[in-house]
Amino acid sequence: MKKKRSIYDQDLDKVEANYFPLTPISFVKRSAAVYPKKTAVIHGDLSYSYAEFYHRCCRLASALTRRGIGKGDTVSVMAPNVPAMLEAHYGVPMSGAVLNALNYRLDAATVRFIMNHARSAVLITDREFSTTIEEALDGVDQRPLVIDIDDPIFEGGKLLGEKDYEALLEEGDPEYAATPPPDEWQSMSLNYTSGTTGNPKGVVYHHRGAYLNAIGQILAFGLSPDSVYLWTLPMFHCNGWTYTWGVTAAAGTHVCLRTVDPALIFPMIEKHRVTHMCGAPVVLNMLVHAPDEVKTKFGHTVEVATGGAAPPSRVIEAMGEMGFRVLHLYGLTESYGPATLCAWQNSWDGLGLGDQAARMARQGVAYNTLEELMVADPETMQPVPDDGETIGELMLRGNTVMKGYLKNPPATEAAFQGGWFHTGDLAVRHPDGYVEVKDRAKDIIITGGENVSSLEVEEVLYKHPAIMEAAVVARANDYWGETVCAFVTLKANAEAVKKDDIIAWCKQRMAHFKAPRTIIFGPLPKTSTGKIQKFVLRERANSL
Amino acid sequence: MKKKRSIYDQDLDKVEANYFPLTPISFVKRSAAVYPKKTAVIHGDLSYSYAEFYHRCCRLASALTRRGIGKGDTVSVMAPNVPAMLEAHYGVPMSGAVLNALNYRLDAATVRFIMNHARSAVLITDREFSTTIEEALDGVDQRPLVIDIDDPIFEGGKLLGEKDYEALLEEGDPEYAATPPPDEWQSMSLNYTSGTTGNPKGVVYHHRGAYLNAIGQILAFGLSPDSVYLWTLPMFHCNGWTYTWGVTAAAGTHVCLRTVDPALIFPMIEKHRVTHMCGAPVVLNMLVHAPDEVKTKFGHTVEVATGGAAPPSRVIEAMGEMGFRVLHLYGLTESYGPATLCAWQNSWDGLGLGDQAARMARQGVAYNTLEELMVADPETMQPVPDDGETIGELMLRGNTVMKGYLKNPPATEAAFQGGWFHTGDLAVRHPDGYVEVKDRAKDIIITGGENVSSLEVEEVLYKHPAIMEAAVVARANDYWGETVCAFVTLKANAEAVKKDDIIAWCKQRMAHFKAPRTIIFGPLPKTSTGKIQKFVLRERANSL
Repeated sequence: MKKKRSIYDQDLDKVEANYFPLTPISFVKRSAAVYPKKTAVIHGDLSYSYAEFYHRCCRLASALTRRGIGKGDTVSVMAPNVPAMLEAHYGVPMSGAVLNALNYRLDAATVRFIMNHARSAVLITDREFSTTIEEALDGVDQRPLVIDIDDPIFEGGKLLGEKDYEALLEEGDPEYAATPPPDEWQSMSLNYTSGTTGNPKGVVYHHRGAYLNAIGQILAFGLSPDSVYLWTLPMFHCNGWTYTWGVTAAAGTHVCLRTVDPALIFPMIEKHRVTHMCGAPVVLNMLVHAPDEVKTKFGHTVEVATGGAAPPSRVIEAMGEMGFRVLHLYGLTESYGPATLCAWQNSWDGLGLGDQAARMARQGVAYNTLEELMVADPETMQPVPDDGETIGELMLRGNTVMKGYLKNPPATEAAFQGGWFHTGDLAVRHPDGYVEVKDRAKDIIITGGENVSSLEVEEVLYKHPAIMEAAVVARANDYWGETVCAFVTLKANAEAVKKDDIIAWCKQRMAHFKAPRTIIFGPLPKTSTGKIQKFVLRERANSL
Repeated sequence: MKKKRSIYDQDLDKVEANYFPLTPISFVKRSAAVYPKKTAVIHGDLSYSYAEFYHRCCRLASALTRRGIGKGDTVSVMAPNVPAMLEAHYGVPMSGAVLNALNYRLDAATVRFIMNHARSAVLITDREFSTTIEEALDGVDQRPLVIDIDDPIFEGGKLLGEKDYEALLEEGDPEYAATPPPDEWQSMSLNYTSGTTGNPKGVVYHHRGAYLNAIGQILAFGLSPDSVYLWTLPMFHCNGWTYTWGVTAAAGTHVCLRTVDPALIFPMIEKHRVTHMCGAPVVLNMLVHAPDEVKTKFGHTVEVATGGAAPPSRVIEAMGEMGFRVLHLYGLTESYGPATLCAWQNSWDGLGLGDQAARMARQGVAYNTLEELMVADPETMQPVPDDGETIGELMLRGNTVMKGYLKNPPATEAAFQGGWFHTGDLAVRHPDGYVEVKDRAKDIIITGGENVSSLEVEEVLYKHPAIMEAAVVARANDYWGETVCAFVTLKANAEAVKKDDIIAWCKQRMAHFKAPRTIIFGPLPKTSTGKIQKFVLRERANSL
């Protein structure tokens, strides 16, 4: 049916009064206006009010602008969770430039690769990483302007740059009028994936997505002006899962932390009355296995969001016993960090701790701000049935999916095939609609024609009283194709346990073909973001 | 400085995977996917789960689509807070059409004017308003398709239409695939202002603004999946201040209510464990002055948001004593309802109830989702100083400001002059940045060259123990220009009080020139939305 031009299509256009690009810059501006005296940032004995924090961000933006930095330029930052890193999350986008938060666990060659690939015009760097950075700068295509963060809390390392960060701020105008990007689709952040093989890919975020994902974090995690957020998650990691912007939007307080150390974390929780924190399961595990003497008691419940891998149910239980309530989030660098959550259902209230933990280990449902998710056959794009058994690829779409990979159209096209972002994670969808990641596409083990989820085997291993960490990979086998091989780290105070005991433990709890045939004891190799490096274990398994 | 085309401008375009128009349709879709069995809507003994609610919305959209209704068409609804009204907030936009929620207190001539102006293609109407609607339809330019809501909870009135609402739903497909609008700027809602004089103006909302304002309501009011929202605010009023969408986005429960009656409200709070509700100060006043026998006790705190006029501090106090915590919001039809809130500051914790109430009576600060507000001289557009004294016009801008007035470019242009939406409210900005509305531009009284805020005088009158309601207007006077004239309603059980006593009460509490010279007892005339009709009182004052 043809329609004539409707009354709603006339004289109702976008004007300055009714349209404004979505950008997280608005968050800091608003919190400074509404709560100027409220503590925005705590770092050691130092603290900044929201007015001070905002003016520091303005100074940074102003100083960068005066030095000719703006739209299309990259500002890289190599720093732990310190105020300068947080300020870069506002000051850099305010100048129109793109923030490139670097993973400080990377080696010099990779950092150099990234600076070349991103054409970094500025590098803000903390003394702690001067060895890596000095080496990375040596031979870089174009030396960026180097600014040093000279944090008194850290001793050691050396100053490498043209200017100190605080002196750079002095150059800037605290009343700098931050203008929004002309287009909310404008690039504002560049995060490199920690690919286990090959060169890392540069994931590009825009202002609209950063704004929306930050709102999504508030809704998922229940942030409010009363929230005190402890930075146990690196800010370089998907911009701290966009909590760098989310906590500010909620007008909560950021508590900085240079090092993830239980001996610091427990007393800080009590001292600052921390309400929220995030971390990979490995961080939770570290808290659980911390020596008793550092486990200071605190008198309130702390919400902890975890992601990056499913938290073993034993860890969820143990965290609960210490006063933490665990929320399981899932996402990837390509989805601005967490994009799904394991939303609590009231019907779980009556379940036992173990059953609750099993449900919570699932990746769950879409954030409000993620538009859609599905588990589908990547060939046909047909969703799998909600049976909790049929495996497909988890796919996402919406405004909080990256713009694409920088200077890498083939990778971008492959990732967006069929109109969805392909996560590369293999998952099932349960009858209640919750998705559960069974494995990375490359981590599934096929033994005698049967698929075995390495995560499922790890889940059982983690329940063993003597096991602290476990990782399961495929081991090539002429007869079975592959067999299940488990690498296991025992707890410090664990009693002696035999390999056969562990295999028997597994067989009692799963189909026999899923149980490991090989058990290897020892510490597990990890990536710079704390993920277990399965490709290393796979090589090790095959060279046994 | 000229820049060459940046690396960030290449191969990073919007595609299906990473761009999705913002629309509140997504909220109901998501809540049905995440919480299918959770109670979405309660109406008397009836309740719908989120899956049922969603399927009813889909059926409505599908039935409308099958009858040729879509983009550019208007669907008007004349109904109290019943499920059909809530469903129209999703089903109508899903079909692509524009929802026009009618104020059920309007007279037939105004309803007819609106239907003609909006070219209503469909009218969904509740038996309760059949007298008005029958008269309005008589002589309408083009008779819409009329659908009856035949709610068993209400007795009386008559069926006027071609079809019953439930039968219309039967026509529709519960699995209707709601497609988002191709453009988030597409019109989706039309709300007419209750102009005190002249024809009402049609305020047009778009999908983007409705989505964002709903998120803003969640953040301002602290909604969560545990929220139970009682519909004491009419849904026709700025789409229930966008809580129609906000409560669904939070996956809370909507509790419908046909009539604002304290004898219903108090028991419902206890029965459904209501956590949140909204209403004009007149509704709060009604709860405060309800007979003791209907004031059922409830064992939890209920958050109440009020707006439309500043709540007198006595009302805030009295509500607190009954177990309600009052939040003061401010907005207009043109700003999707509330756009500012009087955000609590921790420094107020130690204040006495009276001082707290005085601070809370201010309109406050911008929502997260409103971009900016200012108090400025409407001629020069220069902001007034933050001195709490200099009066200017309150102006707003951002994504939650209307598209404009339907078929009224001159009014739209006037409202958006200088790049800001002009509220018409006169305000000051306090040193803490909070704005306080002193009066409507036309409500200020100028006596002997001095400005008197009618609100300030009313505030003092409300504190008088015998006064239930008060309204202050200007009375023409040859010598003074104008004098202050107060209309007052006494409490039912109040002791006799003389006019001079009231004047003396005022003089003790404010500059003498501000105190009323005239006091008139009696009931106050109100608009269809419960606002006191000052233009009627002004005429009355001048004919004394």
